[in-house]
Amino acid sequence: MLQSDLFQTDSDIEWKDLGDGVQRKIFGYEDRVMMVKVKFEKGAIGTLHEHHHTQVSYFESGVFEVTISGQKRILKAGDGFFVPPNAVHGVVCLEAGMIVDVFTPHRTDFL
Amino acid sequence: MLQSDLFQTDSDIEWKDLGDGVQRKIFGYEDRVMMVKVKFEKGAIGTLHEHHHTQVSYFESGVFEVTISGQKRILKAGDGFFVPPNAVHGVVCLEAGMIVDVFTPHRTDFL
Repeated sequence: MLQSDLFQTDSDIEWKDLGDGVQRKIFGYEDRVMMVKVKFEKGAIGTLHEHHHTQVSYFESGVFEVTISGQKRILKAGDGFFVPPNAVHGVVCLEAGMIVDVFTPHRTDFL
Repeated sequence: MLQSDLFQTDSDIEWKDLGDGVQRKIFGYEDRVMMVKVKFEKGAIGTLHEHHHTQVSYFESGVFEVTISGQKRILKAGDGFFVPPNAVHGVVCLEAGMIVDVFTPHRTDFL
């Protein structure tokens, strides 16, 4: 079975630059689940998209406008959101910050 | 299907006091996944335990000694860990902080 290391030390994991002010690090995962940390500069956009994975997310820092299935909210450090499978969703970064995204099943396209 | 709200605003969700310096809030979930935020006072202990769920965790803040399958690491804000099904694991809080735990499948015992 696919499986990450047991421990993730932030300083040991390199950022993958996704361009336009967005960077990603992969944290713990196995087949059924994957945790990913995503850093946004102010003004960076996670464009509206959809995927078959369920997603649960947590804001470590920053302020974001979040859209899920046409509903919009302003969320900030300490808040979170839930994306059902195939729901169209996206974020706009209003103040620089970090989102911890978790997907089930894991994102084969991230490995 | 079991499903949380789409948006979790931290200030709207009450802490559940688990005693001995540990509190919990439930964030996004459905049958296959559940995100939970757990706050630890300095010195609080997540005693060694095991469960059939896979767990991926992220440290929003604090410093912790983490044990998984007999391996120990000191991890801090920004780091994370991965617990395979039925692996014995626990934490000791060295500096007060917050862990974001995600389980697959969801924790029926938390609802």
